[in-house]
Amino acid sequence: MELTFLGTSAGLPTKERNTQSIAFNCLPHENQIWLFDVGEATQHRILHTGIKLGKVSHIFITHLHGDHIFGLPGLLTSRSFQGGKDKPLTIIGPKGIAKFIHTALEISQSNLNYQITVNEFNTETELNVDSFHIQALPLKHGILSVGYRITAPDIEGKLDVEKLKALGIEPGPKYQEVKANETFEYNNQTYQSKDFKGPKKKGKVITIFGDTMPCQNELILAKDADVIVHETTYIEGDKNLANSYFHSHIDDVFQLMRDENVKKGLFTHLSNRYELEDIKEIEQSLIKNTDQEFYFVKDYDHFQI
Amino acid sequence: MELTFLGTSAGLPTKERNTQSIAFNCLPHENQIWLFDVGEATQHRILHTGIKLGKVSHIFITHLHGDHIFGLPGLLTSRSFQGGKDKPLTIIGPKGIAKFIHTALEISQSNLNYQITVNEFNTETELNVDSFHIQALPLKHGILSVGYRITAPDIEGKLDVEKLKALGIEPGPKYQEVKANETFEYNNQTYQSKDFKGPKKKGKVITIFGDTMPCQNELILAKDADVIVHETTYIEGDKNLANSYFHSHIDDVFQLMRDENVKKGLFTHLSNRYELEDIKEIEQSLIKNTDQEFYFVKDYDHFQI
Repeated sequence: MELTFLGTSAGLPTKERNTQSIAFNCLPHENQIWLFDVGEATQHRILHTGIKLGKVSHIFITHLHGDHIFGLPGLLTSRSFQGGKDKPLTIIGPKGIAKFIHTALEISQSNLNYQITVNEFNTETELNVDSFHIQALPLKHGILSVGYRITAPDIEGKLDVEKLKALGIEPGPKYQEVKANETFEYNNQTYQSKDFKGPKKKGKVITIFGDTMPCQNELILAKDADVIVHETTYIEGDKNLANSYFHSHIDDVFQLMRDENVKKGLFTHLSNRYELEDIKEIEQSLIKNTDQEFYFVKDYDHFQI
Repeated sequence: MELTFLGTSAGLPTKERNTQSIAFNCLPHENQIWLFDVGEATQHRILHTGIKLGKVSHIFITHLHGDHIFGLPGLLTSRSFQGGKDKPLTIIGPKGIAKFIHTALEISQSNLNYQITVNEFNTETELNVDSFHIQALPLKHGILSVGYRITAPDIEGKLDVEKLKALGIEPGPKYQEVKANETFEYNNQTYQSKDFKGPKKKGKVITIFGDTMPCQNELILAKDADVIVHETTYIEGDKNLANSYFHSHIDDVFQLMRDENVKKGLFTHLSNRYELEDIKEIEQSLIKNTDQEFYFVKDYDHFQI
């Protein structure tokens, strides 16, 4: 799986950083790409990546502030001309997102050549997308803003080749049968496949947070996550000031990671007042004082998970 | 006066060219900047120019297709943080633009810190903005699309210094009085100011066309213009194909310029299939076969008028 950051600024774009959008490549589990938020000019950023709009099957919106949604109309209409024809798209987001999309398409007389389904929620939602499970809970941002906890499917244990050989089964098509089914037959006997596999690996957990100040639901969403993507609008200065604007301070997010045993933090949505050079400098000084794994992400950064 | 092109592609952005927007600097007549159309990521382009959003007093929309309006919500909200506070903004465009803007602002819970006035029209409109006169007439594009004919104020004739001196008036504050008023007094006599000035220069005419195939109103709007900005979605190939999509072929625009005695053509909205290198090549071969003054504009190009 891979996360690609298409915009990492907060509120306004800067010369260096765009407003919010993240692409999540579901491979090897599903041949799909999902977007989380679509700030203005997300489609422009995508032109400079290997992402094909036709591969984008789902768009998740964390909240309705403009820096997270104003790129939707353009991305949806361009998708018609960039491989999206006849490929359905599902959009999941807080109530209101459907009206925004449909008004933009109607006023501009845009006819999409693929089907869109918009699934709105009022406070929280839970859904499966093929082999993935997604849980969204409300955060604290003055407007409904959610975090999406994505659980990837468990990974089957490796075949115990020695044990299969001992039974007399040499590598070949039979191995695929053992892999894919709960039981298999050999020499008129039925075997449990799990007896010939190593232990299952639990599916990885990635949580992508919308804008928020610290709140209880953050703990649930972050618990034991392999990766969290979290806003750090304020990466220095007064924590109370950050929270008074319903945003997080870097210290809030470090605390969350410690409390919930989070392995890696990808920090985005840094205030537009920071230039890349400032961010690098602050990152260097923070690295010295923490043993937590974190990155201030830049536009186009991508991370294997 | 100056025109700056913030996007020159048609329909979709490319790696090199953005969707449509043009900035018109009204200096020296008025200390204002007007935008014509606001395609997605216009605000991003503006970050790389000297244009201050607070100086933008009027936005004119030619038509409601997405590549001409999807940048509006982001530009309007960012203007609150980029010098626009308490500086009113007027938006002029076809019916529907108000609903698009207000829905986007409402859904995203955006509060602007300045007043916007949206003036919609159904087919055509005519207005004065300070010393400028603007006439908009409908074109032919399958959706209401207009061209804006902008007439700058006449420029007063230069003072005839020799004649004033002959009367006994030496250079000084009196000259300003002669410049600014229809009559002036000197030695208890009243004089007509115009007798002491050279001939007035007619205000320049700039016509900015929305997307269109050839039509009668184009002739009215282009007549004797100093500059026209016109789409040339198709800069080669079959003219009928261009027109079948309600767009113009380069030959249509050359014809319009000839018929209506247009001095200079700035050609924009070139199909997104053209790369800058292709455009340059086609431009070179066209230059050889015409004595008309024209330019294929690129993003960030600017022209003094």
